[in-house]
Amino acid sequence: MRRKLIIVSNRGPATFVRDESGERVARRSSGGLATALRSVLQHHDVTWIASATSDEEQAIAGSAVELDGDGGASYRLHLIAHDPQAYDWFYNVVANPMLWFVHHSLWELAYTPTVDDAFHKAWREGYQAVDEGFAAAVLAELEREPGAAVFFHDYHLYLAPRFVRDQRPDATLMHFVHVPWPQPDYWSVLPRSIRCAIHEGLIANDLIGFHTDRWRRNFIYSTRELLGEDVTQKTVTAPISVDPAEFEAIADSRAVLAAEREIVARRPEKLLVRVDRTDPSKNIVRGFRAFELFLERHAEMHRRIGMLALLDPSRQDVPEYAEYLGAIEREARRVNDRFQENGWMPIDLQIADDFPRAVAAYKQFDVLLVNAIFDGMNLVAKEAPLVNARNGVVVLSENAGAHAELGDWALTVNPFDVDGQAEAIHEALSLDEEDRRGRLEAIREHIREHDVAAWLDALFAALDRIETTARR
Amino acid sequence: MRRKLIIVSNRGPATFVRDESGERVARRSSGGLATALRSVLQHHDVTWIASATSDEEQAIAGSAVELDGDGGASYRLHLIAHDPQAYDWFYNVVANPMLWFVHHSLWELAYTPTVDDAFHKAWREGYQAVDEGFAAAVLAELEREPGAAVFFHDYHLYLAPRFVRDQRPDATLMHFVHVPWPQPDYWSVLPRSIRCAIHEGLIANDLIGFHTDRWRRNFIYSTRELLGEDVTQKTVTAPISVDPAEFEAIADSRAVLAAEREIVARRPEKLLVRVDRTDPSKNIVRGFRAFELFLERHAEMHRRIGMLALLDPSRQDVPEYAEYLGAIEREARRVNDRFQENGWMPIDLQIADDFPRAVAAYKQFDVLLVNAIFDGMNLVAKEAPLVNARNGVVVLSENAGAHAELGDWALTVNPFDVDGQAEAIHEALSLDEEDRRGRLEAIREHIREHDVAAWLDALFAALDRIETTARR
Repeated sequence: MRRKLIIVSNRGPATFVRDESGERVARRSSGGLATALRSVLQHHDVTWIASATSDEEQAIAGSAVELDGDGGASYRLHLIAHDPQAYDWFYNVVANPMLWFVHHSLWELAYTPTVDDAFHKAWREGYQAVDEGFAAAVLAELEREPGAAVFFHDYHLYLAPRFVRDQRPDATLMHFVHVPWPQPDYWSVLPRSIRCAIHEGLIANDLIGFHTDRWRRNFIYSTRELLGEDVTQKTVTAPISVDPAEFEAIADSRAVLAAEREIVARRPEKLLVRVDRTDPSKNIVRGFRAFELFLERHAEMHRRIGMLALLDPSRQDVPEYAEYLGAIEREARRVNDRFQENGWMPIDLQIADDFPRAVAAYKQFDVLLVNAIFDGMNLVAKEAPLVNARNGVVVLSENAGAHAELGDWALTVNPFDVDGQAEAIHEALSLDEEDRRGRLEAIREHIREHDVAAWLDALFAALDRIETTARR
Repeated sequence: MRRKLIIVSNRGPATFVRDESGERVARRSSGGLATALRSVLQHHDVTWIASATSDEEQAIAGSAVELDGDGGASYRLHLIAHDPQAYDWFYNVVANPMLWFVHHSLWELAYTPTVDDAFHKAWREGYQAVDEGFAAAVLAELEREPGAAVFFHDYHLYLAPRFVRDQRPDATLMHFVHVPWPQPDYWSVLPRSIRCAIHEGLIANDLIGFHTDRWRRNFIYSTRELLGEDVTQKTVTAPISVDPAEFEAIADSRAVLAAEREIVARRPEKLLVRVDRTDPSKNIVRGFRAFELFLERHAEMHRRIGMLALLDPSRQDVPEYAEYLGAIEREARRVNDRFQENGWMPIDLQIADDFPRAVAAYKQFDVLLVNAIFDGMNLVAKEAPLVNARNGVVVLSENAGAHAELGDWALTVNPFDVDGQAEAIHEALSLDEEDRRGRLEAIREHIREHDVAAWLDALFAALDRIETTARR
């Protein structure tokens, strides 16, 4: 069934740049959401609404343009040119760090955050204003295509659904929350008016999706506590996933093979890999500390093991993120200074946005460390096993959404327990070949069955049920 | 009905010192728990088990001594001489800061805590060993008095009830938790084995009490999630309180009257008061920031208002507490340096353990600021209105347990919202006399009705119900 869809997300599926000849060209975004939704562009009639984030994009903002998707499909892209001051408040004050830090329980509550008049202003004139801009664009598209279903994404757009609903009580609205939902007490970091507005905005949707039962249940609890409403019937658990065929093709691409040759040429006998954004929720500093503990206890592994940390620099306009990058670099240096000898460096820290190198590392890991503090899903834990060629073992945080699906075949760690993480690294290296192969195959089988198409099917099926119930 | 009780708490109801003539003398502890339980000593047959925390106490530790309580009553005190190294781990590593910071959601999760082998050792050889010591003392007392009910207190003793239960399946055990109970996700700061041991230990009691429905519900949720057990029937909500008659007597004591004269001689027209331990959960830094915002917006109140902050230095052996005291001093100086003029100093910061002065300040406040981040109860919010002589207004955090009882008559603030706290200070000063008197009288009436005797009655009634049910 071909659907009419209006997808709304802060970042779009393509970015626009000038090429060498001065022509404006569209480049596919590499983000997980854009990748996950690419198949939607092929199979459905899609208008995508997103923020214009560069001068090139501002130039084409304001109305929709027709663009080529993959495989001959086309879609419409409607970029919004927000006021730059409002967008800065929206993005760099409210969405990151405030909402992101609330979702991932990252504030140091004795000291941060301080909700002052500057924050209240950023909320009103930034977040609220930008969401009003999104809602206006959605309403314009609904004028053109009244039957289209609107599909909002993530923590940037909590107020938009309510603004749309107020004008169009009959519209079909759904929202997917890609981040962990905190339990009710942690929402008290935000003043009542703001936390209520967030929940009021979200429940203006007909359907709200979460990666795991855990985040979904937390949302049901916090809505009940804050608004006294039971929203169980309008929520759904649908874990996002990847496209295995696409991933296997990427793994054989020229860029990945070149990066893999470099890794193979330098790698020690055993390779511990992590691939993350430099985000405080990813728990990179404790990962280094755990590896240090492992090295302290296993002198026999010195010179035989290395940790490859491929970290994409993230949100460096936000002070908390800049500071975290500093802490990452300091901890890696400390561990290296303690243990390096004769050209062997325990941690190879690479701060770069290099997707082919990440996929090459996925193929080469013996142990993959995913020790996130909290994580909505964590796609690395699904991507890497798909293409790994060494019967590698996944060490996985109990607080990553992926743990709900893959926990049986990974080695579970508590993100705060570096002692336990050091033990898990050792255990992963100690498992026999058959055990490791069995775990890896089981993860692959699960992901092939529960791929990104299954995620979308689950969401659309839930939406159809709700629409059918509404018609009755 | 006179009960046989074994009270167990880390700190006892009296401390022992040498007086000037070299005699060992008992001094009444001033802590809230000791005060709250004083009436129990009068009306019941009590043995109190506590830690020996000084050389004088070590000297009498090991078996029970007979002591005088108030009003001619006597009780038995059984002090335990723990191994000093074990006690240091128990108290300064596990109980504070780890458990206290978990209970009050104070960790900065991107960086702290790190659960390493040192912490695991402190848990096993400190917390667990000390709780085994408490359990052994309880078992010895139960040998002597098999029918006595055991009444454990707080976060120092989570493992002891299980150790007792294993030896005495028939014993009557109850536990009161004086701190906020965090929601299940925050318990993941501790490794599964430790958080499960805490819950397993607590549910070995027949009855577990909490100050509010909120903390009790969180305990029911986290026990269900961690252990799959429904403990609703063995929990009770019983808010601790104060003894109004005792408090009114203290307010007229010589020491309080002397302190009050000093305050009256120096006070400006309006007095904003806070009384706290220098604990990161008390939110003292943001309180100063809120007062700064108030002064920024209300130049007409310069020289006419002052903030009196009476802060009892707390747990200065723990680095997080020492750092927080530094932050308190820095913030007070910053605000004073910005606004002070011609001898008027906006914030009068006094770091001392001075109970008479605190009660004098209770009598003199126009606005009382209780903006705790999280607080099990907060007895200041109950004590101060009882003796206030100026129709003072209570500004009260929505996250303090006292808010469940007093919220209707206080001005509610969000602890992170300094803008809202500045507005609340202004609003408190703007309320008319009659409104203020009405609020204060309502709080007093509530506390007189729900005094510390009512707290104990509620607990013992719940215990009787459970014992009756068990007999059936």
